[in-house]
Amino acid sequence: MNETHASMLPDLKERVRKFIDEVAIPLEGTAIERDVEALDEIAGTLRRQAREAGIYGPQLPKEYGGLALPWRACAELFEECARGLLGPIALNCAPPDQPNALLLDLLASPAQRERFLGPIARGEKRACFAMTEPAPGAGSDPSMLKTTARRGNGKWVLDGHKKFISGGVKADIAIVPAQTEEGVTLFVFDTATPGYRVTRDIAMATSYQIGGHAEIVMEACELPGDAVLGTVGQGFEHIQLRLEPARLSHCMRFIGRARRAMEIAQRYVSQRVSFGAPLAELQQVQAMVADSHIDLHASRLITHHCAQLMDEGKSVKHYSSMTKVFVSEAVGRVADRAMQMCGALGVSEDEAISAIWREARPFRIYDGANEVHRSAIARRILHRNLSP
Amino acid sequence: MNETHASMLPDLKERVRKFIDEVAIPLEGTAIERDVEALDEIAGTLRRQAREAGIYGPQLPKEYGGLALPWRACAELFEECARGLLGPIALNCAPPDQPNALLLDLLASPAQRERFLGPIARGEKRACFAMTEPAPGAGSDPSMLKTTARRGNGKWVLDGHKKFISGGVKADIAIVPAQTEEGVTLFVFDTATPGYRVTRDIAMATSYQIGGHAEIVMEACELPGDAVLGTVGQGFEHIQLRLEPARLSHCMRFIGRARRAMEIAQRYVSQRVSFGAPLAELQQVQAMVADSHIDLHASRLITHHCAQLMDEGKSVKHYSSMTKVFVSEAVGRVADRAMQMCGALGVSEDEAISAIWREARPFRIYDGANEVHRSAIARRILHRNLSP
Amino acid sequence: MNETHASMLPDLKERVRKFIDEVAIPLEGTAIERDVEALDEIAGTLRRQAREAGIYGPQLPKEYGGLALPWRACAELFEECARGLLGPIALNCAPPDQPNALLLDLLASPAQRERFLGPIARGEKRACFAMTEPAPGAGSDPSMLKTTARRGNGKWVLDGHKKFISGGVKADIAIVPAQTEEGVTLFVFDTATPGYRVTRDIAMATSYQIGGHAEIVMEACELPGDAVLGTVGQGFEHIQLRLEPARLSHCMRFIGRARRAMEIAQRYVSQRVSFGAPLAELQQVQAMVADSHIDLHASRLITHHCAQLMDEGKSVKHYSSMTKVFVSEAVGRVADRAMQMCGALGVSEDEAISAIWREARPFRIYDGANEVHRSAIARRILHRNLSP
Amino acid sequence: MNETHASMLPDLKERVRKFIDEVAIPLEGTAIERDVEALDEIAGTLRRQAREAGIYGPQLPKEYGGLALPWRACAELFEECARGLLGPIALNCAPPDQPNALLLDLLASPAQRERFLGPIARGEKRACFAMTEPAPGAGSDPSMLKTTARRGNGKWVLDGHKKFISGGVKADIAIVPAQTEEGVTLFVFDTATPGYRVTRDIAMATSYQIGGHAEIVMEACELPGDAVLGTVGQGFEHIQLRLEPARLSHCMRFIGRARRAMEIAQRYVSQRVSFGAPLAELQQVQAMVADSHIDLHASRLITHHCAQLMDEGKSVKHYSSMTKVFVSEAVGRVADRAMQMCGALGVSEDEAISAIWREARPFRIYDGANEVHRSAIARRILHRNLSP
Repeated sequence: MNETHASMLPDLKERVRKFIDEVAIPLEGTAIERDVEALDEIAGTLRRQAREAGIYGPQLPKEYGGLALPWRACAELFEECARGLLGPIALNCAPPDQPNALLLDLLASPAQRERFLGPIARGEKRACFAMTEPAPGAGSDPSMLKTTARRGNGKWVLDGHKKFISGGVKADIAIVPAQTEEGVTLFVFDTATPGYRVTRDIAMATSYQIGGHAEIVMEACELPGDAVLGTVGQGFEHIQLRLEPARLSHCMRFIGRARRAMEIAQRYVSQRVSFGAPLAELQQVQAMVADSHIDLHASRLITHHCAQLMDEGKSVKHYSSMTKVFVSEAVGRVADRAMQMCGALGVSEDEAISAIWREARPFRIYDGANEVHRSAIARRILHRNLSP
Repeated sequence: MNETHASMLPDLKERVRKFIDEVAIPLEGTAIERDVEALDEIAGTLRRQAREAGIYGPQLPKEYGGLALPWRACAELFEECARGLLGPIALNCAPPDQPNALLLDLLASPAQRERFLGPIARGEKRACFAMTEPAPGAGSDPSMLKTTARRGNGKWVLDGHKKFISGGVKADIAIVPAQTEEGVTLFVFDTATPGYRVTRDIAMATSYQIGGHAEIVMEACELPGDAVLGTVGQGFEHIQLRLEPARLSHCMRFIGRARRAMEIAQRYVSQRVSFGAPLAELQQVQAMVADSHIDLHASRLITHHCAQLMDEGKSVKHYSSMTKVFVSEAVGRVADRAMQMCGALGVSEDEAISAIWREARPFRIYDGANEVHRSAIARRILHRNLSP
Repeated sequence: MNETHASMLPDLKERVRKFIDEVAIPLEGTAIERDVEALDEIAGTLRRQAREAGIYGPQLPKEYGGLALPWRACAELFEECARGLLGPIALNCAPPDQPNALLLDLLASPAQRERFLGPIARGEKRACFAMTEPAPGAGSDPSMLKTTARRGNGKWVLDGHKKFISGGVKADIAIVPAQTEEGVTLFVFDTATPGYRVTRDIAMATSYQIGGHAEIVMEACELPGDAVLGTVGQGFEHIQLRLEPARLSHCMRFIGRARRAMEIAQRYVSQRVSFGAPLAELQQVQAMVADSHIDLHASRLITHHCAQLMDEGKSVKHYSSMTKVFVSEAVGRVADRAMQMCGALGVSEDEAISAIWREARPFRIYDGANEVHRSAIARRILHRNLSP
Repeated sequence: MNETHASMLPDLKERVRKFIDEVAIPLEGTAIERDVEALDEIAGTLRRQAREAGIYGPQLPKEYGGLALPWRACAELFEECARGLLGPIALNCAPPDQPNALLLDLLASPAQRERFLGPIARGEKRACFAMTEPAPGAGSDPSMLKTTARRGNGKWVLDGHKKFISGGVKADIAIVPAQTEEGVTLFVFDTATPGYRVTRDIAMATSYQIGGHAEIVMEACELPGDAVLGTVGQGFEHIQLRLEPARLSHCMRFIGRARRAMEIAQRYVSQRVSFGAPLAELQQVQAMVADSHIDLHASRLITHHCAQLMDEGKSVKHYSSMTKVFVSEAVGRVADRAMQMCGALGVSEDEAISAIWREARPFRIYDGANEVHRSAIARRILHRNLSP
């Protein structure tokens, strides 16, 4: 983070905080949390307001109205805005489009930039990244990818079945890895392409996912020759470019979510009296407060450290895995404690804790299950004899 | 458990297992999990079928069609039936009516038995037990009870505000503790009584709760003089009679829930291949399987031990607290592991794991938050110098 | 446990308790905890007194002065006596001779019974079971056994290197598994046999191990033809006979150890004042007390359940593994909490907690590392599709 | 850390690493770990060599031969040197003299500097800080201090009883807080003062503590008027100056200790074969490796963050508490995993893991028990409404 960015940050954070508290949080509610159309509609409104507040797209290129901030600064703004369940949607830094735009920015041809990246970055269209497949296709192990793309007449024909594709419902654009003769290749195309079909919005324990979680079938889906994103056969290498920042961005946002849960819980235990004293005076409650602050403090440091490395252009393969494992488990613990501190109120949808708790859980699963990361981290350590 | 009961048990368990797998599980689904009317309708159908299968009401008196089994036998049947998300509803051993019927059986006058206990036990009507109040009323600390009952003209006039009352939506009967001049007193009455009003069904993270979670207001709610359940001023003592069996019954049922989650997860990891082998061959997955079986094994032993004490007429104040703390945390761990083992599928509502995971979480909160139990257990130990 | 044993048990337990408190505990001390000769000397004295008190050898055959109690009764007496750091030594139910005697009782020829089992069971001699070898020999994986026994002239010639052999220092008798042409075979012989040499007593974090932890070298160690214990080539099957009871007996004793630690800690927190009140009134301390009682309660139930199965002659391969994993971790947690509750005093050797804490730790390692058990438990479950 | 220090650091770290591996580690051994005189003798030798290597006293003033580095640089050197069990002793940055010298540097009069600080900083003499008292004196709660100092004839007369005073055996200098009429006051004096008596070296589970753990009695111990350190009645404020850096320095050193344990464990699992493959290929082992690296990575970041704040002159009351709780538990987990990975070898004293494991445990107790810190952290948060 250079000095200009560092000097802008306090003001930006304050503006985001105010926007979240005054604009975004009041719109939250169970009625909309899983309603794809309602979320899209709110997104439109909120993004206009975020643009007016000068906080739209912290990570987005300036040409599309973004702030083009480095990762280290994004870490603080993503956290700040994610306190609002609708915050990342409002700033257009929610997944999957935040990493989708990043990937397009790195790989898209000029025509693809104009047709796909521009509308996504301006918040006019939505894309999904359709990787996961039902068994026996690609899950934790991407090499099991079953979707295929065959060449013919200067075109590509896609066939495949995708599942749990976040943001896939009513998405305008799809980014799809598929097996080709030359190896895995990425394709980007309009979801209106014949043969591409969203079969359902899969109900999940989570919430506030723009575009829900789609199951998608592609049957003889014919794409133009220029639908390839990046280089033919380089799909896996390209996916890595998206994966690591996506993972780290999740950490940034979830720290904000967990912080929101604790804000509610701290307020509650300070007021709620039981057995003659506020809950805040009970040591078991105090231990939960202390542990949550420690978890969040460590989560921030470990996330900021990795963001800094990314800004310096260094490889974060190892550190982003460690960060993901630590933060996904820490924010899960924090949300769990916040719920326990608030009792039945915390379980109810009257407060945001329940939604945050449900949303935090799968972070231990997606972006690579923590078990997969643990194994990969250790193999790297043991093979290269990395110092503990 | 005497020999007769012991000899009946294997056959009863097998019939319950079959009923759950063939009749109850196929009816599960997200469409109904929070739909109070749909659950009531299904309850009617399933209870008829359960009666035909000879498995209705394991814990209910024979005069109402139940099996009148001792706690130790109920432990096994409650577990067995709770594998089905609709199982306890089907056998009419779901909360809150399972402990409600128990309380009425112990305290009701002959007229109250006929008017309230009979219809509940036969599954014709539903009751709620309306204890919890919004702050600053009764929560973990029952002594903060704010609801009052004033005497006048041979009647009682209730005023109060209740919240998070499970089973309260569309309940026919209410059991309500209230402050009177003589101390806390229980009242049982028809919810059609003027002044009694369910203001909403509170959305909760949980699922499959018959009668949802009501917020209730009572304003000048006039009850007849014989609405007192048990003895005036003995409300807290009476509540204890309900609390301990209610808590232990929850343990029994949740063991079944957690077992169901693991059945799904074991099937999944045996089939799903990743990185060249079934997930079942990965040690991190194996550790989750082993730990879950150990958790369930210990949960059963600790629950059955306590059930046995109850059958022997011994006080289970101490042991039921220890059992509740252990089992509520163990089943939470098991559900969490089952979800992790199944990845995105486990988070989705395509499998029952997600509902079980959401439902298990608040068990660490209700029936006395685990923190309250831990403190009470320790104070009992330290004051009476109980041997570790 | 039949009625006779059940009726004897309360009195036996009371006598053991009194013996431990009055006779065994006063002899404890850092000066002797790792002094093999001092422990042997004390053993002699204490065993005489235990015999007089009618509590010697709960598990030992009556012909050698033991009580020949079933496992379920032993569970309670082993716990009771293990409260004393010298208790199991006093009752001659300490490892390794407790399972050594069991193995000999099952396999020894009449001559071996007289020569080896009798002196061990009467507490006159000590044996060691020398399985573990330095890398690349047998550790967690017994199939890596490197020690060999070659036949020649009606004799057996042993060559091998053993390490971490508890009880091996100054042992009179050795039981040694070795590779033979027909498969692994057990040998029992006098340690005075030429070629058998204890090279050192390995310093360990643990304490009060009779016979310390030996490193042993066998070079051309010539044994008579009748040194085979059991059947040639059946060594692995024979070892199983020792392993499962040994593992479960450890559980029984460690419950007693952990209980002792908590007795000390409960006394301490009831008396020690800090910030104006006894530590016992602090919720974080209360949580430690409650969790420890819950851990011990569950540990007892799970251990007694397995002991009962053994008395019924059932296979406990699966349950003894689950019991070992649960109890070894539970008693470790209890000892850790007891230490934390007592602060610096708990870390010091002024109280027995420190020794118990150090001794409990390796129980997660020996008798099969918990990781090995977890993997084996899960593979059994998944291959046989065992119900959770 | 300014640029000069930053540029020196890599070379300094490398020199420390080399010194530890080649000079300090070879001298480790169970024979000396609790032998106060042997440790003192080795200290003399090692300090000479450290001075020659240009690495003596990273934190000490230059006037006494130290490097006078800022905290952020010390963090890295303390970690590096603490890989050797004798490392901090060699560099004279071991407790209690590392924080003792700091306290004297802040408070000592010129005469006290010359008489006490100089010899300590040059490694010629040793001091102890005698705070803790047996019950009912000062433990976690310093306000319970029972030691008194009465004025008379221009002198002070001390009476008190101290316990668990690390470094107290054969210390030349004592720093003692005592109650005076004006409030708690610090005294610094020669231990040869009549009436001051070390009654014993308390055996503890820990190891490599220079000066052991003393129990001390002061009876009519007459001190000159200028024995006051700092200001009369300001003892508690003065102690804070020592406490926070002492706590953070422990974190720095323990990270090095835990790293050493993992270095040994990584080497072991890479070589040791079991069930047909190196332990390193087992996922349960991999999970332990990954978790330990994550724990150490987070521990470093949280410790370095706090060190940086100290260098900036900011209050670290809150952050040093959070750091201490996190790091003390993290290094305990790491040492525990390293032991588990190495099996019996890890429990033995053949490798340093056992000593590290025993030494790490009490860090959750001293410098303020973690329970006390958790409560203090939470009360600060809740009273000041600090953001999570």
